[in-house]
Amino acid sequence: MCHQKRIRDYGVKIGKLETGKQNAISDVEGITVGHVTLSDGDIQTGVTAILPHQGNIFKEKLIASTHIINGFGKTMGTIQINELGTLETPIILTNTLSIGTAADALIEYMLDHNPEIGRTTGTVNPIVCECNDMHLNDVRARQITKNHVIEALSNTSTNVTEGTVGAGTGMLCYSLKGGIGTSSRLMNMEHGTYTMGVLVLTNFGILSDLKVNGKAVGEELSNAILKSREEQDKGSIIIIVGTDLPVSERQLNRIIKRAITGLSRTGSIITTGSGEVVIGFSTATKIPHEKTTQCISIPVIHEEDIDLAFRAIGEATEEAVLNSLVTATHVVGRDGNERPAFKDLLSLHNIHLI
Amino acid sequence: MCHQKRIRDYGVKIGKLETGKQNAISDVEGITVGHVTLSDGDIQTGVTAILPHQGNIFKEKLIASTHIINGFGKTMGTIQINELGTLETPIILTNTLSIGTAADALIEYMLDHNPEIGRTTGTVNPIVCECNDMHLNDVRARQITKNHVIEALSNTSTNVTEGTVGAGTGMLCYSLKGGIGTSSRLMNMEHGTYTMGVLVLTNFGILSDLKVNGKAVGEELSNAILKSREEQDKGSIIIIVGTDLPVSERQLNRIIKRAITGLSRTGSIITTGSGEVVIGFSTATKIPHEKTTQCISIPVIHEEDIDLAFRAIGEATEEAVLNSLVTATHVVGRDGNERPAFKDLLSLHNIHLI
Amino acid sequence: MCHQKRIRDYGVKIGKLETGKQNAISDVEGITVGHVTLSDGDIQTGVTAILPHQGNIFKEKLIASTHIINGFGKTMGTIQINELGTLETPIILTNTLSIGTAADALIEYMLDHNPEIGRTTGTVNPIVCECNDMHLNDVRARQITKNHVIEALSNTSTNVTEGTVGAGTGMLCYSLKGGIGTSSRLMNMEHGTYTMGVLVLTNFGILSDLKVNGKAVGEELSNAILKSREEQDKGSIIIIVGTDLPVSERQLNRIIKRAITGLSRTGSIITTGSGEVVIGFSTATKIPHEKTTQCISIPVIHEEDIDLAFRAIGEATEEAVLNSLVTATHVVGRDGNERPAFKDLLSLHNIHLI
Amino acid sequence: MCHQKRIRDYGVKIGKLETGKQNAISDVEGITVGHVTLSDGDIQTGVTAILPHQGNIFKEKLIASTHIINGFGKTMGTIQINELGTLETPIILTNTLSIGTAADALIEYMLDHNPEIGRTTGTVNPIVCECNDMHLNDVRARQITKNHVIEALSNTSTNVTEGTVGAGTGMLCYSLKGGIGTSSRLMNMEHGTYTMGVLVLTNFGILSDLKVNGKAVGEELSNAILKSREEQDKGSIIIIVGTDLPVSERQLNRIIKRAITGLSRTGSIITTGSGEVVIGFSTATKIPHEKTTQCISIPVIHEEDIDLAFRAIGEATEEAVLNSLVTATHVVGRDGNERPAFKDLLSLHNIHLI
Repeated sequence: MCHQKRIRDYGVKIGKLETGKQNAISDVEGITVGHVTLSDGDIQTGVTAILPHQGNIFKEKLIASTHIINGFGKTMGTIQINELGTLETPIILTNTLSIGTAADALIEYMLDHNPEIGRTTGTVNPIVCECNDMHLNDVRARQITKNHVIEALSNTSTNVTEGTVGAGTGMLCYSLKGGIGTSSRLMNMEHGTYTMGVLVLTNFGILSDLKVNGKAVGEELSNAILKSREEQDKGSIIIIVGTDLPVSERQLNRIIKRAITGLSRTGSIITTGSGEVVIGFSTATKIPHEKTTQCISIPVIHEEDIDLAFRAIGEATEEAVLNSLVTATHVVGRDGNERPAFKDLLSLHNIHLI
Repeated sequence: MCHQKRIRDYGVKIGKLETGKQNAISDVEGITVGHVTLSDGDIQTGVTAILPHQGNIFKEKLIASTHIINGFGKTMGTIQINELGTLETPIILTNTLSIGTAADALIEYMLDHNPEIGRTTGTVNPIVCECNDMHLNDVRARQITKNHVIEALSNTSTNVTEGTVGAGTGMLCYSLKGGIGTSSRLMNMEHGTYTMGVLVLTNFGILSDLKVNGKAVGEELSNAILKSREEQDKGSIIIIVGTDLPVSERQLNRIIKRAITGLSRTGSIITTGSGEVVIGFSTATKIPHEKTTQCISIPVIHEEDIDLAFRAIGEATEEAVLNSLVTATHVVGRDGNERPAFKDLLSLHNIHLI
Repeated sequence: MCHQKRIRDYGVKIGKLETGKQNAISDVEGITVGHVTLSDGDIQTGVTAILPHQGNIFKEKLIASTHIINGFGKTMGTIQINELGTLETPIILTNTLSIGTAADALIEYMLDHNPEIGRTTGTVNPIVCECNDMHLNDVRARQITKNHVIEALSNTSTNVTEGTVGAGTGMLCYSLKGGIGTSSRLMNMEHGTYTMGVLVLTNFGILSDLKVNGKAVGEELSNAILKSREEQDKGSIIIIVGTDLPVSERQLNRIIKRAITGLSRTGSIITTGSGEVVIGFSTATKIPHEKTTQCISIPVIHEEDIDLAFRAIGEATEEAVLNSLVTATHVVGRDGNERPAFKDLLSLHNIHLI
Repeated sequence: MCHQKRIRDYGVKIGKLETGKQNAISDVEGITVGHVTLSDGDIQTGVTAILPHQGNIFKEKLIASTHIINGFGKTMGTIQINELGTLETPIILTNTLSIGTAADALIEYMLDHNPEIGRTTGTVNPIVCECNDMHLNDVRARQITKNHVIEALSNTSTNVTEGTVGAGTGMLCYSLKGGIGTSSRLMNMEHGTYTMGVLVLTNFGILSDLKVNGKAVGEELSNAILKSREEQDKGSIIIIVGTDLPVSERQLNRIIKRAITGLSRTGSIITTGSGEVVIGFSTATKIPHEKTTQCISIPVIHEEDIDLAFRAIGEATEEAVLNSLVTATHVVGRDGNERPAFKDLLSLHNIHLI
């Protein structure tokens, strides 16, 4: 995991459950993440790609679900996931005004890998999520190209870089620099041990609301640095949830709805001007694209097992948000706008997280 | 099926698919229906009970789903079905102001059959649906007692009476007498033949809108009898769907959403003042109440098989509505209010349905 | 209205309400429609643009709502409409694999008209809807460019061409050639006369299901021409609803949910492989983008007035679908695939619609 | 407010906003609350009634909305609120197995006050919410009678008792005694100062999860008293939200969805076995039952004003939960089952909340 100093390295331990080996979404077998970062003066943006499994995802779809925490956002592809309960493409994260380009690139990628699309079978449902990085990035310039998206899809690995990277390059979090964060939790059940992985793209919140494991760090820091400069929150968060837990799409939906518990514990009030969207998938079952002659058998946990997943997603989301914040670096971007790094401020003002 | 003259006996054949043996919801193995009818002067009401299977439904729940076509209604129990995807009690139909009594009776019935409820396990989610029979029935008198509900639950059979019976006793349909109707369709798939069963409680519509298999019979009849007396529609419909098709709760929800296609073809515009609610369940899988140590395996059809179910539910709903209408008898009720029987008017005005 | 022969010109009168002057969505003051058509050999596709009003729609948003009849589709922008209840861009219709390009073009168009987006205010929510025209069009070639979209946005008028035009160029309907159709209805209420306008992009259905005002024309035609060639329905429909009725977003949602009644009456069973999406807006109230110092006052009809709107949308949708079918022309497209025109078949087989 | 020692009296200050005068839901003009408490050996249950305004609520309905946080519950009446956006009866809270009786009583109350129901106008939609108090109460005995409900409706006042009272008599919270809690927040906007009021019925959570304003008090207490006795959470919460903020039903829904932020901050992971339901209403606009000849004008805040309401509901919910916990008293109930009072444990173990 790139030797970045993460929230646990500051002594902060979120929740009761153990993390996976890397404490990342890639602890779920088969999930990889790739970034392309554009950081040059007014341009502070990028692309992050998540591969849900390493096979042909169009032919072997995954059970999936979406949940809109707040819908002031432009995420594409949720309608079909909700109807059919499956994910059939990688997931792309980028800036708000580049979703058209990203969708076009993802369609092209899928056509290249699946010559039957639009010929002997139907179409494909690209999943593109976004946050608005206009403060640090010249978002109107729309510098993301199709090649950037293809590149992010091509360079994925299980080693997930966090902070000021990929789609997170120009994002804010609690008035500071935000970006990409990830975390995972293990779930020990009678029938096996499963992993809940979360990756977030953070771009929300005002500093004085920030809580670190219950501690009002944001208020402390806000008093130290912001004075009367409190800003309006216009942000968003994208939460990608991957797990190998055997679940139905209904169960998965119940699980991903609980991401908000962790988000709330970092201090968010879920402001109006934000797209807060959760996309979840389970790698436990592959749904064949081609019609089968027999019924498909879907293994699912008994509902009484699900509380552990509820706990896991809350904890992993809370920790992923904090990881995005604490790994992010200071950025000067568009028109000289800048955002400090949380870690720099902690040192500077001698603030302890525990 | 009680030797009632049904819509097919008038030569009307709805759709393309074959019906089950009885052309009734009880063609689905395990489903039985019982009625209690109160018909005496101002009191024209009753109770209809549907048993989804003949075992202990609390301990062996069925995959279930609900769909609100129009929500000006008081149906109880949909929240938990939507969350957990299961049905755990019989379904009771009655008049709007008796839902409290019906719920209390159904709870009592469930407590009697399941001594562990409220002791070693949690509570129970009673399903009660209603339409408003105030035109023919003194609904304010609330004459339904707990005993009526228990009686309806006790006298169920596979032989389903239609028309002016049970909860349908005081209901209207297309300005005429309505009530209970049922129908079924067979679905031949590669992996088996399945049955889609529908039972409706009709209480909606204005005469001039009525279409019988596309024919504008309502307009014809309306010209003959109503003259300027066109009334406002304040009605409702409850649609109970039972099937043995192996489906997930998501798939079942997709299916029951299509009930409206059949309803629309009878002429309904789905007016505002109506509770139009669909409750569906599949008998293909029993979900154990008690926690299992292993995952549960749910057989489901491939999504490409589902169109046949979409066709089946539309056809069965359309035919069930027409059956409710054509089997209903003339009723004089509260304060002398009355509604003619469709079948009587057809004879009287020499109107042919084909 | 371009002197096309429409369904009323065949003597077919759908429903009870009067139409607007042009019997088109443009009967609603302020709404205009533009098309760009690409028809050349393997390329049979296009773009249709709907302007909801003639001012700056980003600064003066309209109350809006969406409804998913079936979600096997890729329509973009519904999340934000659902959350905020407003429409802030024109609506673009095109083929499925061109949604990325169309979104990018619409974003560019909005940025050009609103220099404050991404600078002093947030982002913009582009609305792009699609159907899959792969049968007649080489959809994988993705020949739609940003310029086509800009051109469609630039050439809108109140004179709406129907049939094989714009986004409808390569679409099918009931196994025949489909495309664009429109219709409208007047709603006389105590406080004014309002218009309900509908525009559809049809791409669904199998011939034997087609009903024209209740008459089983599709079955008749199917027997005459198709023989054993019955195809699988993989289609979709986009339904755009514009009205000047003063409604809340909740009321508008109730109204647009009833589009399915008209759709059902043309014979659709709403098959699985289709994106069937309704987008509705009301021009009665303009919601200012900029924060106001006072509350906004929203005029809405009393709920008891709404049945007339329910009737209007069902009728207008039914007629718009039939208009799309009867105005479409014979097309030979990709790899020699072809679809006959309904009107040609009616002549050829001497079939009467009434 | 009954001189109960509330969470603020322990020095705990939740959030940034000022409270209303009483820091109770009754700070919203017109809202009153009444309790009936049954506490005798095995019977530990009751009824709580909330009057949303002091006029005839059936004739002057309020804009309302519901939100299901978790649907393992039996709350009645949400379907119609969602469809019509209005509340037309008081709200009753009681135990799970008494909902039938409570509904029947509330219907009777409404019939008594509105002789036109079921005669010249339609029916009425009773709102009944519940939690399961089976641990301390013999819930199977169903000791709640219609008279208890009528009595609770009759004895409401602006002076809201909290803790072990009314429907809260037998409820648990974070493994301790829970029950009724309330709180309020003021919202200063350019066009006026408004109040957000929250009343909760708490019955959820395990002790080790409890956080008081971020402090892990539950873990501390759990170590002190529970040892290895950690229990499974089978609980619920009902959250009633009243406000005088002028909002549409869509805006109100956005607001009440944020109650979960406060709930999460007290430590809840929203376990599966719980009915967690929010019912909200605004007293700002009265919607007439009778049809009006003109449109109705609904004042609503500009969407940019809404963040203050989002903050208010999160804070008030968090504080109401803590109030329910800290005011509750030790109860010994059914079969000798008992639950300690949080306040007693704080003294006993010398635990400080700040």
